Amino acid sequence: MKTIDLNCDLGESFGRYELGEQDEILQYVTSANIACGFHAGDPTVMRKTVEKAVEYGVKIGAHPSFPDLVGFGRREMAVSPQEAYDMVIYQIGALQGFAQLHGELIHHVKPHGAMYNMAAKNEELAQAIAQAVYDSSPTLILYGLANSELTRAGEALGLTVAHEVFADRTYQPDGTLTSRTLSNAMIIEEEIALQQIEQMVLRGSVTAVDQTVVPLEAHTICVHGDTVQAVHFVKKIAQHLTNKEVKIEPVGSS
Amino acid sequence: MKTIDLNCDLGESFGRYELGEQDEILQYVTSANIACGFHAGDPTVMRKTVEKAVEYGVKIGAHPSFPDLVGFGRREMAVSPQEAYDMVIYQIGALQGFAQLHGELIHHVKPHGAMYNMAAKNEELAQAIAQAVYDSSPTLILYGLANSELTRAGEALGLTVAHEVFADRTYQPDGTLTSRTLSNAMIIEEEIALQQIEQMVLRGSVTAVDQTVVPLEAHTICVHGDTVQAVHFVKKIAQHLTNKEVKIEPVGSS
Amino acid sequence: MKTIDLNCDLGESFGRYELGEQDEILQYVTSANIACGFHAGDPTVMRKTVEKAVEYGVKIGAHPSFPDLVGFGRREMAVSPQEAYDMVIYQIGALQGFAQLHGELIHHVKPHGAMYNMAAKNEELAQAIAQAVYDSSPTLILYGLANSELTRAGEALGLTVAHEVFADRTYQPDGTLTSRTLSNAMIIEEEIALQQIEQMVLRGSVTAVDQTVVPLEAHTICVHGDTVQAVHFVKKIAQHLTNKEVKIEPVGSS
Amino acid sequence: MKTIDLNCDLGESFGRYELGEQDEILQYVTSANIACGFHAGDPTVMRKTVEKAVEYGVKIGAHPSFPDLVGFGRREMAVSPQEAYDMVIYQIGALQGFAQLHGELIHHVKPHGAMYNMAAKNEELAQAIAQAVYDSSPTLILYGLANSELTRAGEALGLTVAHEVFADRTYQPDGTLTSRTLSNAMIIEEEIALQQIEQMVLRGSVTAVDQTVVPLEAHTICVHGDTVQAVHFVKKIAQHLTNKEVKIEPVGSS
Repeated sequence: MKTIDLNCDLGESFGRYELGEQDEILQYVTSANIACGFHAGDPTVMRKTVEKAVEYGVKIGAHPSFPDLVGFGRREMAVSPQEAYDMVIYQIGALQGFAQLHGELIHHVKPHGAMYNMAAKNEELAQAIAQAVYDSSPTLILYGLANSELTRAGEALGLTVAHEVFADRTYQPDGTLTSRTLSNAMIIEEEIALQQIEQMVLRGSVTAVDQTVVPLEAHTICVHGDTVQAVHFVKKIAQHLTNKEVKIEPVGSS
Repeated sequence: MKTIDLNCDLGESFGRYELGEQDEILQYVTSANIACGFHAGDPTVMRKTVEKAVEYGVKIGAHPSFPDLVGFGRREMAVSPQEAYDMVIYQIGALQGFAQLHGELIHHVKPHGAMYNMAAKNEELAQAIAQAVYDSSPTLILYGLANSELTRAGEALGLTVAHEVFADRTYQPDGTLTSRTLSNAMIIEEEIALQQIEQMVLRGSVTAVDQTVVPLEAHTICVHGDTVQAVHFVKKIAQHLTNKEVKIEPVGSS
Repeated sequence: MKTIDLNCDLGESFGRYELGEQDEILQYVTSANIACGFHAGDPTVMRKTVEKAVEYGVKIGAHPSFPDLVGFGRREMAVSPQEAYDMVIYQIGALQGFAQLHGELIHHVKPHGAMYNMAAKNEELAQAIAQAVYDSSPTLILYGLANSELTRAGEALGLTVAHEVFADRTYQPDGTLTSRTLSNAMIIEEEIALQQIEQMVLRGSVTAVDQTVVPLEAHTICVHGDTVQAVHFVKKIAQHLTNKEVKIEPVGSS
Repeated sequence: MKTIDLNCDLGESFGRYELGEQDEILQYVTSANIACGFHAGDPTVMRKTVEKAVEYGVKIGAHPSFPDLVGFGRREMAVSPQEAYDMVIYQIGALQGFAQLHGELIHHVKPHGAMYNMAAKNEELAQAIAQAVYDSSPTLILYGLANSELTRAGEALGLTVAHEVFADRTYQPDGTLTSRTLSNAMIIEEEIALQQIEQMVLRGSVTAVDQTVVPLEAHTICVHGDTVQAVHFVKKIAQHLTNKEVKIEPVGSS
């Protein structure tokens, strides 16, 4: 039986600022990437978000970022590999502080935003982040863009690695995502997105923008919970995959 | 045999900014309070500071603060007890992330600056901080001003508590420190400071500014390592106490 | 003919985080207090907010705060008068940078949150803030709680001062606001709030919680634009006062 | 008679952290680039630094940066041109707030660190920064790397532009600086550095690492004041140029 994980960013509120539809989305996802205060989240938001995730039985993951609150961690920063290592250790530790209040260990780490994108392409950065995850705990699962430098770096260290795929993004013939600067980067139609996911999960491939069929491992699907429509779409994904006899469960369960 | 701990703030550099004489002071102190990024310290500084402390066999403690880099955590802030709890959990967790790179557990927690001073007097805040320490791990030792709300709160929870005393500060008849706003707050002469410490450690009392002899438990002495003179004075304290057959060792060793 | 100013906090978004209903509220208010990056706002938000205010002909005011993004500037901080002076100078200057893009001068300064509340009671802090406003420009208008240390400090310097009143807060016999920690602090019923405003603007008094009638100058009313209901209520205030022949215009126009 | 400006970064302390030898260096430089709180500096440091500059008759310049205190503004950040524009407006405004306390206008703007380096090569970023300077005031002088995208962007807008040269850095045949990652990037010997400066100022050229003589306008020399040796070297530069009948004065004086 095929299995798939649904992961979602969580805990991206900050101080007075609220973001997200946490309660609803937690019914559908199996793992959550929780902001650790560098791009979003503050200690109080982190505590509450971990509480929610535990309440819903959703796996707790760290979502470390470059230190950039104004840019929400989405702006590339030329940090050194060592600095990246240090900031990932810090953020995993901080989140683990809240997880252990519930006797929980963090389940996975997924870099956020620009850190995620840079680590997908930059080998040195990818290695530093993977090492930080490994050094925090070798049992942590590293989430990264499927077939990226980050998944490679994690695998080289012997970490369990989750290859992440996207329902609403198109792919290039080399298996990379189409850049958001291009007009055909996003999949707008839900039906097409569901078909893409079905193909990725059941047949281990994706049809690129030029119609090439590219092999692609899919361990976890990135979904969004920040609008009512997004949550509705996640529900559809879950139903669609369940109907196809795919078991939705956290990475590493089987 | 009497024992005493010597503790010192460490890791208070930040980015390009350097502060402190860490290498020298580490020869004399038995426990270090390491900044966690809220008043000083950054992930890279924290990693290096933990490395140094481990190298010298000095116990690693968290030094959580209010979030105030510009004010170095020295400005009182009206945070709620819940916010204080959350920020202490966060900072202990972040430092533990670096400690476990060496297979170490954090040994103690000493609030910094305004958080320390407010927790000495404010019962609710003291309870929130003590609870955060306990919830992080019941084996952590809580360092607080001797005979303060913070030590009381820690003892009520069953934590091991270290009553902290000062070599270079004068005391009031009620056992509290003389306010720094008063001219007689500081002890300038080294010889008098050494006598005060000897009395506190060996006889469990301090002579207040009005010559009253006040009972005072002394588990740890706060020392400074940020100047050459300060380090020199710590060396003198260590020698003086050793000469008096006092064993200098971390709190909780015996 | 009586006149009154309606002022509203604006530009309190931050990075990805959005707050407020700026476009609607700008039709009703005559002056806006724009966040300057210390409790909310970032350079991009400030530029856009100033553009909007200019577009609607609403007077631009600086809304300086203590440096506390997580706490939204609402937590009291023990900054020194000199530090308060410096941070007010900084924030006024930063906002003036955006105002002058439109050939505009800042019209007024209203401290935010905890800075506002502390300056209402703390004479030294009030003097430092008033001095910073004066030194930035003696033509700036200082908005402060009616009959507070802040308005007194501004008047002593010869600044034009706007005494601010609240529609939805009850008052004590000494003319101060009822603390929000008390159950009768807020006026829930719109009709009562409108009557209170009418009395303050037309008759220069307010009826305190014990039914004492207290004299109170009212130059500007603090209104909110962060929810649809709030904007609706501001519209009602404007209509009610207009019906009573009160002219709604910025402080300092006549 | 030839003239040259000597500029130096100033006001790079932050909170408790001190950096620099301001008092001495102010005797030799003619213009100062003052940190505006994004990579260094805080409102109190800015006020004091402006006071010092005014006292010594040194021209006040803004030294805007990317928002990166931990990285001291030295890490490249992928900010949009619009974001760069906004943050430069903000920082110029904030510093102008302190300058006007002395009835002074800011004299120039020199981007800091990574912003300076990126603006030297990235046309769009350079244009955004130049526009921000122009929109803050068309009389501001823009300091940029000689023959860079930034100086070109400033000249295209009609700004007075100061081409900046370095005493202690080697140059490539195309007039750019040798990358610091290369071993021959720095000039260690003072005598060689003085000869390079003499050539740049008196003959308008520089001898590149391959011995090519490259034409180079030199309006201002970047010097350092953060160590005793650095200040000593600046004194030597000043004496050397004065001996060669070069007048040391701020850009724009003649």
